Parts: sequence; structure tokens; C-alpha cells
Amino acid sequence: MTDRKQLILNLFEMNCVSHITHGLWRLPGNNRTRFNEIGYWQELAERAEDGGFDAIFLADVVGAYDTYRDGLETSLAEAVQIPSNDPLLVVPVMAAASRRLGFGVTFSTTYEPPFSFARRMGTLDHLTAGRVGWNIVTSYLPNAARNFGLADQIEHDQRYRIADEYLDVLYKLWEGSWDDGAVVADRERGVYARPEGVRYIDHRGEHFQVAGPHLVEPSRQRTPVLFQATGSPAGTAFAGRHAEAVFTGGRDVAEFRRNKRNIQDALVRNGRLPNDAKFLVQAGVVVGRTDEEAAEKLELYRRYSSVEGILAHSSLPFDPLAHAPETPLSEVLTRAGLDPTSGPWAAGADGTVGQFLDRITAGREGRFFVAGSPTTVADEIERWLDEDGIDGINLRQYHTFGTLTDFAELVVPELRRRGRLPSADEVRDDRRTLRERLLGEGPRLPDRHPGAQYRGGRNLVSETVGVASA
Amino acid sequence: MTDRKQLILNLFEMNCVSHITHGLWRLPGNNRTRFNEIGYWQELAERAEDGGFDAIFLADVVGAYDTYRDGLETSLAEAVQIPSNDPLLVVPVMAAASRRLGFGVTFSTTYEPPFSFARRMGTLDHLTAGRVGWNIVTSYLPNAARNFGLADQIEHDQRYRIADEYLDVLYKLWEGSWDDGAVVADRERGVYARPEGVRYIDHRGEHFQVAGPHLVEPSRQRTPVLFQATGSPAGTAFAGRHAEAVFTGGRDVAEFRRNKRNIQDALVRNGRLPNDAKFLVQAGVVVGRTDEEAAEKLELYRRYSSVEGILAHSSLPFDPLAHAPETPLSEVLTRAGLDPTSGPWAAGADGTVGQFLDRITAGREGRFFVAGSPTTVADEIERWLDEDGIDGINLRQYHTFGTLTDFAELVVPELRRRGRLPSADEVRDDRRTLRERLLGEGPRLPDRHPGAQYRGGRNLVSETVGVASA
Repeated sequence: MTDRKQLILNLFEMNCVSHITHGLWRLPGNNRTRFNEIGYWQELAERAEDGGFDAIFLADVVGAYDTYRDGLETSLAEAVQIPSNDPLLVVPVMAAASRRLGFGVTFSTTYEPPFSFARRMGTLDHLTAGRVGWNIVTSYLPNAARNFGLADQIEHDQRYRIADEYLDVLYKLWEGSWDDGAVVADRERGVYARPEGVRYIDHRGEHFQVAGPHLVEPSRQRTPVLFQATGSPAGTAFAGRHAEAVFTGGRDVAEFRRNKRNIQDALVRNGRLPNDAKFLVQAGVVVGRTDEEAAEKLELYRRYSSVEGILAHSSLPFDPLAHAPETPLSEVLTRAGLDPTSGPWAAGADGTVGQFLDRITAGREGRFFVAGSPTTVADEIERWLDEDGIDGINLRQYHTFGTLTDFAELVVPELRRRGRLPSADEVRDDRRTLRERLLGEGPRLPDRHPGAQYRGGRNLVSETVGVASA
Repeated sequence: MTDRKQLILNLFEMNCVSHITHGLWRLPGNNRTRFNEIGYWQELAERAEDGGFDAIFLADVVGAYDTYRDGLETSLAEAVQIPSNDPLLVVPVMAAASRRLGFGVTFSTTYEPPFSFARRMGTLDHLTAGRVGWNIVTSYLPNAARNFGLADQIEHDQRYRIADEYLDVLYKLWEGSWDDGAVVADRERGVYARPEGVRYIDHRGEHFQVAGPHLVEPSRQRTPVLFQATGSPAGTAFAGRHAEAVFTGGRDVAEFRRNKRNIQDALVRNGRLPNDAKFLVQAGVVVGRTDEEAAEKLELYRRYSSVEGILAHSSLPFDPLAHAPETPLSEVLTRAGLDPTSGPWAAGADGTVGQFLDRITAGREGRFFVAGSPTTVADEIERWLDEDGIDGINLRQYHTFGTLTDFAELVVPELRRRGRLPSADEVRDDRRTLRERLLGEGPRLPDRHPGAQYRGGRNLVSETVGVASA
């Protein structure tokens, strides 16, 4: 049993009503409209921990989806990621309600200063006793740019160049500013921290100037587990340097494998090992006691699914619903001045609007999707692990808390029987950090990770200790 | 009894080891070194709520005190506000551990974008069900400026001009972007928010450009209770426009009364009422079952007090400890090139270094300080309320949790007997917002507050609804 690859099991969440399964907030008994309440997050964390999940993974955006139909109307009516609340602030609530569960939070490197973000994540790593991870994003919504003083988005590859320097600042703060053993908390001698173990970072880069020192003393992980979602060349190069877990192409096995190989090559180019990053996919699982029961549930979810919500989220620059289904898509694209060979419509540009709509709505389910009995589901998940080569899933929620409890009650026991998840006994007293649990080593970044180069103050421009930064 | 002015009772805290009573972290049984742990904040909140406190008030800085002796050494050794963790992230922990307690958090308007801060505070107002307040500061530490890309601090009055526009952006987001009733969460019709009730703010000012809409739907208070600490002319003018509770001059009654009068005048000049702001002071209370027991405690605290910690915190540009106590202070000031008539040394410039040291260390106790039996303490607090004209205190902690539990066990019952605090029965089921509890009205800002001018989208430059912002 022990040589079987185990599944990393995360619940995919967002601090909002409608994250990705649009329309389903209306399902009878769905709790998503409780997202503003502290009790929602306490209950979610308790259920996830008791149910055998490794972590709760929180998506985020810092703007509204307002390009579909040139405005906010559809997103607001469908609650498509608006309203949405800050993701970091629910982590302490969930941490207080759990002892083992990990937390992944999404935060963008594009709009907020690295110094205060370093402090927030350091604080979370302390409060969670090393159970926190960070999903590094660079933001893509035009409205987000306008919320932070820019006329429009910064260009994609430039955002990654900024992110690279952002990470450099963070590593200097998290890894380089305080030595292990700097904190002695010696009441007799009246010394809390040994000054010679703490230093300014004096970062002076192209995009950031940060003096330090880091305000947070070393936490269990120091650097949180670094997650990233990517497929692009700039994103792949970035992942090769930084990522410890990557979300990648979940719609198609060939795409997933290609991305995984590219990222593993990038890891090696950066002096890291091919297994230094875990590969996660977003997965949809609809489970019933029988295949029939699962099919009924799926049918119910499809009935509540909202095409308009999906379209608002897709940021399409045209409205397929404004045309008769039999209209050739090429006609619509031409009228809108869009290139039929590039964009989410490229694969179906020779079909009709109706076919395109079917594809875009069904596409939400993608390759990593299964509906069926516990056996059917477990068989499929084993295929994802062994044949496709994934390491774990972010479980998409159709119904809250239904998706979580269905999985916990029906799938987890089956995966445990097959040695694909640790047993309830094994997890009960697991107090390891998130890095140790997901990566199998830690709690700190491995020495071969670029973030480790600043340890002990090495490779900082200035190594002056305890002298006022100029 | 009911016509007696009641005391607003806050516990003064900071997410760090040594906040203001330097050296006392070394006291036997002091819990301050537990500040990194989630359990510290849970226990603190439970004890404060059970003990009859109104709120926990969290100070903050975003840099290190590194001017004393030209470096970080003393601050690090004495743990003077470094290490320090993010204050907002412990609020959800404390909120989960309480039902009535309020929370004041300090955040600076100088270094981080208003859009994400608006979202964080909106999130906290939801999670706490309207129990959150904000202490508006503009930051004064040179090191803080260097942590956020600046070569040095922005000049004092300019920081207040920036803060004024910052508040304007926040009011537009908190008060103007979403109408009451915009959220309908209608499962039948599939409408979560009515688009006509939500709008961009399209703020285009001198320092900020923010499109909106606000990402957070209206919370109980919308705008958190606005706290401010001030004495300066620019600060007083700012308080007149914005503040609902002011911390002011706690060292001298004449200074306190002058500041209070100036701020009340400023309130009236802004169309507000003189009682639209409450006046709070930082207070030190050492209580024992008898006056003798209190005197012994005070003696213990003085023995553990650290002069070096106090000096590091004071940001003095010279080191009194480097000179013999009998040295004339004027001699030291001249040698350091300092003006003897302006600065914290001005009042004692004709004395010795030793006298100056005595004053600066004793000055930490100031006017609003009392040590004695519950009767002695309650008598003195009644004088502060009735003669000096304060509305409440931020209780300075000498010992954690000792100061809190001493006050809760010995002073609170006495103040309740005298009608100066609501009874345990009155508070038990109090589910009012922090604004209602402190200000006696609410839960929203009163109509005469400048933040209210944007309600319903009034006075926004653009009132376009549901149309993509340019």
C-alpha cells in the first residue's frame, strides 16, 4: 500500500457567493450566501478537517468582471466573484477551528507593497503554526488595474518581471533578515532578540526599494508554500524558479502533460529537482451512493447552472446569447472585429453560436471530472494519479457544504481503503507544516530553492548589522 | 444612576512583545512572548469580554525604531515593537472567541492603497458583525518610509492632506458604491444583487485614482468607527472632519482640555455636533485589594521597567545614558547640535541629564495614572470622567494578563456599583455594533458626518450605473 502515490486533497474556495459553478448558489440548501459570516468559515474548516482534506485553497481577484455586455450587470446579478471579501482574513478563523488543515491564499504581486504582504504572511504562518501557502498571481482583470491607480493592465510578461523582483524582496525578508536562533527571549539577561542575528535587507531594485528589517520573527515555514497557476512561457519560467506546487491545464490530458514537462524542465534549469513541485488540477467530482444517484445530482447541478454567469466570468468580448443558436460563429466574430484564429473561440470558429455555447459551458467540467459511485470516482482519481501524472486536486464545489460532505463521506473512505489517502489514525495527530505534508520535506524551503540563497544574510547587497539604513 | 457618565473601557494592545511598558515582558508569568500564538488572542478576547471591556485596541507601526544609538540594537534586545505582527489578522481570531467585544485596529494612510484597505475593513466588519473600528494614522517612523520605497518620511502636514483624500476614497467605497437593499439574494429570480444599486466610484484625485465598485457588500456599520490620535493643528482639522473618537494628550489635564476644546470647535466648523466625538486617554491603573498591595505591585513594575527600552521607543537623537547624571542637559544638547527650546527636552533644558531621565521615564505614567485599592482607583476614574471630561480609557498593560484580570476582578465591579459601567446583565446580550455602543447612535455614520455625503451615489464624480468605467 505504501508505495502508492497518495492524493493531495484541497477544497477549492473563494470568499464570495459564486466562484466558478455559476448559478448553483440558488440550489436548495446551498450555504454560499453565508460567506460574510464568521460561522460559515468555522464550520467549513471543521468539516474539511474532519473529512480528511489537506487544505482549503482560496482563489481571489481584486476587481470586477465587467467586460461581458460592457458592464457590471451580469456579474452583480449572478454574484460572479462580486461581492467578494478579503481571503487572508478568514484564514485565522479557520485556523482557530482546526489543528491540521492547511490554507492556500491567493495574492497578487502587481498592486500592493511587498513589505506589508511579507508581514501578513509571516503573521499567518505564526497563527497557523506553519499551515499556510500562497498562490502567486499577477492579476489579469482590467478593472483591478483601475482600482489601483492604473489606466489599464500592465502587460503580461512585464507583470512576471515585477513578480520576480517581488519574490526576491520577500525571500530577503522571510529568509535573510532574521537568523535562526536570533530570538532568545532571555528574561534573566533582558534580551529578547540578539541584534547580531537580525539585519536590514536594503533591497534597491528596479521596481522596489525596501530597507527592512522584516518585522516578523521566524515562523515555522518562514516562506509559505508557494503555489502558482500557469501555462504561459513567462509563467513557466517563473514557476521553474519559485513554485512548489503548480495548478495547470485541467481541460485536456495532453495539455496537462505538456505543461508539467515544461515546468519540470524549468525546475531543472534552475538547479531544482523535477519533483520539487507538485502538480495539481482543478477537479469536479459528483458522487452518489450509486452511479444513478450521482447522475441525478449532476442533472440537478446542470439545471441550476447559469450560462449568463459563465459568460460574465469568461470575459468574452461579445455576447453569444444575443444571436440565434444557428448563426455561424465566424459571422459574429467578424462583426465584432475579432480574430477567429486566436481566443477561446478559435477551436470552434467554423461552427455555430449554439455549438460554441455548448462547448464553453461544458468546458467548465473539463478533463478532470467524474460523476458516479464511490468506486467509479475512486477508479477515475487513481487514473489521474497513475496515468495522467497529477499529484492532487482542488475540488470544485457545486453545492456548499454538499460537495465537501459527499466527498468526505463517500470518496475519502474508498481512497483510504486503496492507500490513496492517509488513514484517519495517521492524520489525527499530524502537526506537520503544510510544506512537510505536501512536499515531504521541510518545514523550510530546501537549500536548492532560490529563496534559500539569502539565509544568514548571504547575498544581500548590504550586510550591515544593527546600523541605521541610509 | 442612569445620568452618570459611563466609562468607555478599552484594553490597549499591540501584536508584539513590548508595546509601551518596556522591560515588563520579563515579569514572572507575563504572557507577552506568546503573541505569535493563536491561543494568546483567543484567551485575551475571552478574558476581556468576560471582564466587561468594551474593546481591544491595537496599536501598530510599520517600521522599526532605529534612531536611538543609530541602530536597531536596543529595540531588538528590548523587543520594542519589533518583532511585531499584522494587527488586522488577529481580529478574526478574537471575533470568533467573543460576541460583544469591539476591536480597534491601527492602519496608516500613507503607504498602502485605499482600495484593498477598504475591502479588508469591510471584510472585518462582516466577520465581526459590526464590531470594528479603525485608528487612522499617517506614520511617523523614518524606517517605515524606507520600507515602502521612499527615501524619507513625507512631511507631516502633507501626510494629512494625503490622508484626507484617502478617507474620501474610502467613504465613496464604503458608503457610496452599494445602496442599502442592493443585495436581494433572490434564489427564485436568480438575482443576488440588483445592478442598479451598485456603482463605480471613479475617483480621480490628486493622489489616488480608484474605479470601484467596492468589492464588499454593505456590512452593519459600513464605515468602521473612526478613531484618531492627535494634538497638532493639521491633525485637529482632520479630526474635525473625520474622527468619532479621539485619543489626546494624556500627560496633563490642561493639555487634554485644550485639545478637546480645539477638536470640538473643529467638529462644529464641519457641521458636526460637539459630542460627535468621544475623548479617550491612555491610562495606567495599578490596582490591589488594598492601597498597600497596589503600591507593592507598582514597585515591582518599576523594578522591571527598562530605561533603555523607553529611550529606544522615544527616538531621542542623543543618548542620556552616555553622560554622567549630573551633566547639564544643555551641554549635551549643544554638543549634539540640538535646539534646547524645541523637542521633548525643552521643559527640562536647564536641568541635568539625570533629571531629564527621571522625567522621561516617569512621564510614561503621566496624568491619567492611578495606583491603589478599588475605591482609590474608582474615585480617580470618576474624577477623570466628571472633572477632566474624558469619555473613556485605553488601559495600558503592565502585566499580561495580570493588568486585565486585576481591572476586571477589582475595578469593574466597583465601577458597576457606581453606575459607571453597564451591569453584567445589561452587557450579556448586547449585540449592538461598536458605533452604537460607543457613540450612542448608529450603526451607520450620522447624516451630518462628511462620509455620509456619498450615500446613494450622490456627489460621486460619475454616477454611471453598470457601465464599464473608462
